[in-house]
Amino acid sequence: MSQLVAVGTVAFDAIETPFGKTDKILGGAATYIGLAASHLNADVALVAIIGDDFPQSFLDTMVSRGINLDGVDVIAGEKSFYWSGRYHHDMNSRDTLATELNVLTQFNPKVPNNYKNADILLLGNLNPEAQLAAIDQMNGPKFIVMDTMNYWMDNNNEELQKVISKVDAITINDEEARQLSGEYSLVKAAKVIQNLGPEFVVIKKGEHGALLFHNEQVFFAPALPLEDVFDPTGAGDSFAGGFAGYLAKTEDYSFDNLKSAIIYGTAMASFCVEAFGTERLLSVSKSEIQKRLRMIQSLIQFDIELE
Amino acid sequence: MSQLVAVGTVAFDAIETPFGKTDKILGGAATYIGLAASHLNADVALVAIIGDDFPQSFLDTMVSRGINLDGVDVIAGEKSFYWSGRYHHDMNSRDTLATELNVLTQFNPKVPNNYKNADILLLGNLNPEAQLAAIDQMNGPKFIVMDTMNYWMDNNNEELQKVISKVDAITINDEEARQLSGEYSLVKAAKVIQNLGPEFVVIKKGEHGALLFHNEQVFFAPALPLEDVFDPTGAGDSFAGGFAGYLAKTEDYSFDNLKSAIIYGTAMASFCVEAFGTERLLSVSKSEIQKRLRMIQSLIQFDIELE
Repeated sequence: MSQLVAVGTVAFDAIETPFGKTDKILGGAATYIGLAASHLNADVALVAIIGDDFPQSFLDTMVSRGINLDGVDVIAGEKSFYWSGRYHHDMNSRDTLATELNVLTQFNPKVPNNYKNADILLLGNLNPEAQLAAIDQMNGPKFIVMDTMNYWMDNNNEELQKVISKVDAITINDEEARQLSGEYSLVKAAKVIQNLGPEFVVIKKGEHGALLFHNEQVFFAPALPLEDVFDPTGAGDSFAGGFAGYLAKTEDYSFDNLKSAIIYGTAMASFCVEAFGTERLLSVSKSEIQKRLRMIQSLIQFDIELE
Repeated sequence: MSQLVAVGTVAFDAIETPFGKTDKILGGAATYIGLAASHLNADVALVAIIGDDFPQSFLDTMVSRGINLDGVDVIAGEKSFYWSGRYHHDMNSRDTLATELNVLTQFNPKVPNNYKNADILLLGNLNPEAQLAAIDQMNGPKFIVMDTMNYWMDNNNEELQKVISKVDAITINDEEARQLSGEYSLVKAAKVIQNLGPEFVVIKKGEHGALLFHNEQVFFAPALPLEDVFDPTGAGDSFAGGFAGYLAKTEDYSFDNLKSAIIYGTAMASFCVEAFGTERLLSVSKSEIQKRLRMIQSLIQFDIELE
């Protein structure tokens, strides 16, 4: 079991979907990553920043899942990052109702000393400067995974390219892969992105699954067809958390093992969307996860006679 | 090896893509279905209508692939159905430049006598009245597959519902499944559609693969990630032809065998889009098909330790 350091946001979310709405609930990329990874018994530490308005009960929830919060900086007299959004009926589009960066503008990641030798560093979607600062504090992790989004391509592309050149794997959605590469075909886009640095490129297609590219090889992980998507918030981060958690558990960074890691990520994302916020990630049991993995296996299982 | 009757259009297509444009080439749903099915050595007969402007060389091409054309009605002094379209850069959207129905307005399917006992009837996307007429001429086929589109839902829904109630399987794209069922979730949509009649519902998601629903079971077939899609025309019909051809070859209408049939359909569609029109379906070799099937297998192959 390797150590896993996850750098990202710990935040308040307020969410509206066609099924209802929430007050300010526990949210943030690092939160979802940590909770998803905790189901693999990963030794995971979050590196984040919050204000002193953040409820102790939210932090206790994470600690009770075995997540180390020594790297979560609490800034006195300041407010935590807050995001609010409303999802439309199709759940694929959303309106941002509020983004209050608050403490996030002064985020300077501090990796706890006893995690600086961690094998795996997961960089959530953040300002590339913060991502670089986290990389610099680590003592040569074996595997670095990064997430990012179009905002940083538009606004801080130079620093973003530096981060991309230093990581082993990038997770990115299909539209962002097209923007980053200038290629429409995802196969071509993945090649361009591999040439920027990462040996592994994971392209997330939401309800359409995910693709993993490595050299000339490609793997496709289906998403589980669901009757209802209740709240998509955090699905991508739960995917990343399941993925990195599996790598931490297995300590194997081969293409074959990354395939399995992506299947774990897929399973964790499929739970995440079943309820508001982190609710389902907190309640899901080990046997439910095993059952979901079997469902994914049987979803794509076929026998064909080859001649 | 069962007989397979495919009812649909045999037509002229003129296609523009970002890669080039064609004159009037061989097209039509039944054409693609027949050519795809011919690679499984299916005993396939087309039921269609053309004018006397249709080149003998186009017909010879099909006969050379072992396709029976006794059911293709040639109307003297009339012109064949003609469609022209232009694809955009993303290949997912297209403009129709011309639709000249010509002989298609008088299409009254005539199933050849020596195919009326065929086990499999494949109804291409057509006016539901023509689809019903074909069903009525058959002596109780073992398996009926239909394709359709939103146009018939909007303009001839009553007859369309009659056809749907009589078939074993329907192939339909995701947007059309949503329209037909009134459900956004494809899982829910498939349940509603199963209740209209078909035991099997195939939802086609283009570059995102296809879903097969049967009772409470679901199977997902991935699409092969391609460097370039040269011309998507006929991909859905090649999918249906590969699917029905495999059923004709294997004479097994179980859920498990339908899964394999869909993988064959996926392979045939992946060849179809590699060149203009029917070009690639005409040139593809048996060993290329076998290789493609192996690629699809390895695309989704993973091992995961279950506890």
